[in-house]
Amino acid sequence: MKPFVFFNAENVRIQLDDRSYDIQIGQNLLQGLSGDGAVPAGTAALVVTNETVQPLYGSRLVVALKQRYPVVHTVTLPDGEEHKNWQTLNLIFDALLQHGCDRKTVLFALGGGVVGDMAGFAAASYMRGVPFVQVPTTLLAQVDSSVGGKTAINHPLGKNMIGAFYQPQLVVCDLATLDTLPVRELSAGLAEIIKYGPIADMDFMGWLEEHMDSLLARDRTALAHAVRRSCEIKAWVVGQDEREAGLRAILNFGHTFGHAIEAGMGYGAWLHGEGVGAGMVMAAELSHRLGLVDDAFVARLKVLVQRAGLPLRGAVLDAADNAGRYLELMRVDKKAEAGEIRFVLIDGPGRACVRAAPDALVREVIDACCA
Amino acid sequence: MKPFVFFNAENVRIQLDDRSYDIQIGQNLLQGLSGDGAVPAGTAALVVTNETVQPLYGSRLVVALKQRYPVVHTVTLPDGEEHKNWQTLNLIFDALLQHGCDRKTVLFALGGGVVGDMAGFAAASYMRGVPFVQVPTTLLAQVDSSVGGKTAINHPLGKNMIGAFYQPQLVVCDLATLDTLPVRELSAGLAEIIKYGPIADMDFMGWLEEHMDSLLARDRTALAHAVRRSCEIKAWVVGQDEREAGLRAILNFGHTFGHAIEAGMGYGAWLHGEGVGAGMVMAAELSHRLGLVDDAFVARLKVLVQRAGLPLRGAVLDAADNAGRYLELMRVDKKAEAGEIRFVLIDGPGRACVRAAPDALVREVIDACCA
Repeated sequence: MKPFVFFNAENVRIQLDDRSYDIQIGQNLLQGLSGDGAVPAGTAALVVTNETVQPLYGSRLVVALKQRYPVVHTVTLPDGEEHKNWQTLNLIFDALLQHGCDRKTVLFALGGGVVGDMAGFAAASYMRGVPFVQVPTTLLAQVDSSVGGKTAINHPLGKNMIGAFYQPQLVVCDLATLDTLPVRELSAGLAEIIKYGPIADMDFMGWLEEHMDSLLARDRTALAHAVRRSCEIKAWVVGQDEREAGLRAILNFGHTFGHAIEAGMGYGAWLHGEGVGAGMVMAAELSHRLGLVDDAFVARLKVLVQRAGLPLRGAVLDAADNAGRYLELMRVDKKAEAGEIRFVLIDGPGRACVRAAPDALVREVIDACCA
Repeated sequence: MKPFVFFNAENVRIQLDDRSYDIQIGQNLLQGLSGDGAVPAGTAALVVTNETVQPLYGSRLVVALKQRYPVVHTVTLPDGEEHKNWQTLNLIFDALLQHGCDRKTVLFALGGGVVGDMAGFAAASYMRGVPFVQVPTTLLAQVDSSVGGKTAINHPLGKNMIGAFYQPQLVVCDLATLDTLPVRELSAGLAEIIKYGPIADMDFMGWLEEHMDSLLARDRTALAHAVRRSCEIKAWVVGQDEREAGLRAILNFGHTFGHAIEAGMGYGAWLHGEGVGAGMVMAAELSHRLGLVDDAFVARLKVLVQRAGLPLRGAVLDAADNAGRYLELMRVDKKAEAGEIRFVLIDGPGRACVRAAPDALVREVIDACCA
């Protein structure tokens, strides 16, 4: 196995010219945040969190921030993907305006991917842009959604359809916050970690096969490595293609099928990472049927997905024409062009590509892969 | 009088690195749009317009665009500043998603500032960014809101509070569309044109004094010059400070008081340009009381504002404590910092500055300048 390359012993750096920033990965980072020079200066801070995370970590963050900002406000959102909509986003704008927050107010997103996506979009849009810091408290957010500047809310007709590319000034991954993560969400985070193997680094996939039990037991050394390596790969990809003109789309491996499951089941029924888990198996199966990978590769991925506690099979979205419903939902995917679905496929282990596939073959895969 | 500097005989260029674009100014440009290489390519076009403009110019634009795009959709919004909110913005997202529009769909904003602001924010946010073209049909939009990349919607607690800096790929100012502009809106547009004199170019102010009658009579040669010179000055300012870190704020001369009038009266009661008209007089009066300009300058500006058909005096927003209400509304202005209002003032004719002023003096100005 090749040695892993670390950009920095402490931080992973996202290189994006004047929008570059650090991802800090470590234990008990929340407490030390106020003394950290990387935290942006401002006239006030607004902590955006949700009703689950607020009682666990809200006061720990607020106490730290009070040492750095003249005032610290908190807005607590309802928890869950089904609330990732305009109404909930507007709670953040209401709070900012009611408190008279100006352009130098720093937003802190304390929570999982939903909180990060909404706080990020609010930061991008409030007065046309205020600084923000991601403090992800779920494994999924630490390895994926809080890194790379994608922010968005859902529309009833499609996931993440309304948003902005907007980079945080800092990402703080405190591994201690993973102690309280429900096991189902731990598995959902592992889906986004597993993803980095097939698309970019089969050595990392081997490491995951060796250390899956440690990760499930929340061994902090194993978690630190998995988070760091995931962020490194994501940093490398995003650094080359910030606005998803090309390469960056490979990070959506498993997401085209996964988003269809999430939207088709109603947001919140399946966790995002669960959709990605089953979606990766479907995308790998499609890659295999297109002759890009052998069946041993698909089998190996399925074992890892299953060991992570993730669903292996997609949901049935329509009893009468399940494949038709998947295709309908996938045609509004953001990667689609003129109604043609663009799939992220595995073009040989450790290498991804983006391409179309014949509807008939996609239907075969859906029929074969849904429960 | 100094000769006017033109960047280009046909177009005014906004220089913003890879976000640079042209402003075309001329007659009957809508008809020729399809053959224009500057119009971005795409899989489809969506024309965003309103119920007033659609019957006048909608089909003219759609016919032209059908020669360039495989499909052309239209979404018609209700007319008026009071509709510049999330509900109306969502009509654009609904149309985009219902038509299955992808990332290569080009949005065309056909209308005034409200249509441009909403279509621009929709373009900035739909799938995190699609290309868009401004086709302003009001004088105000041609000289101000369609140029410079500011997009936004209003919040009940403040104007333009939610938005993005997002540049169009092209701005098409067809002077022929000004023929149908109501006279009240013509005056509102003149407010933003007059603005460029005091802040940047007193020669232009002299030209306006000479040609105000021609402008009110909609003489196309005079209008072409006024639009071009306004866009040139705006291009120069925006090119140096795209995201309003400093200099760009001078374009908001008259807007701090004006926004308070608009918000205090309820959006739509006063036109934006009417608020700017009275607001410029108030800002000039404050400049005078701070010793920055003499009273002859204030008197000269008042004559020009009045000749343009604009209100000279601010509205009474609160019979009991009018100045207090103005101050309250101005403290949520985007230029405010930690509750301190930042005024754009005239620091000598043709030169603007941004600074704070004592509350007591501001109260005096409001008391002296409101009807």
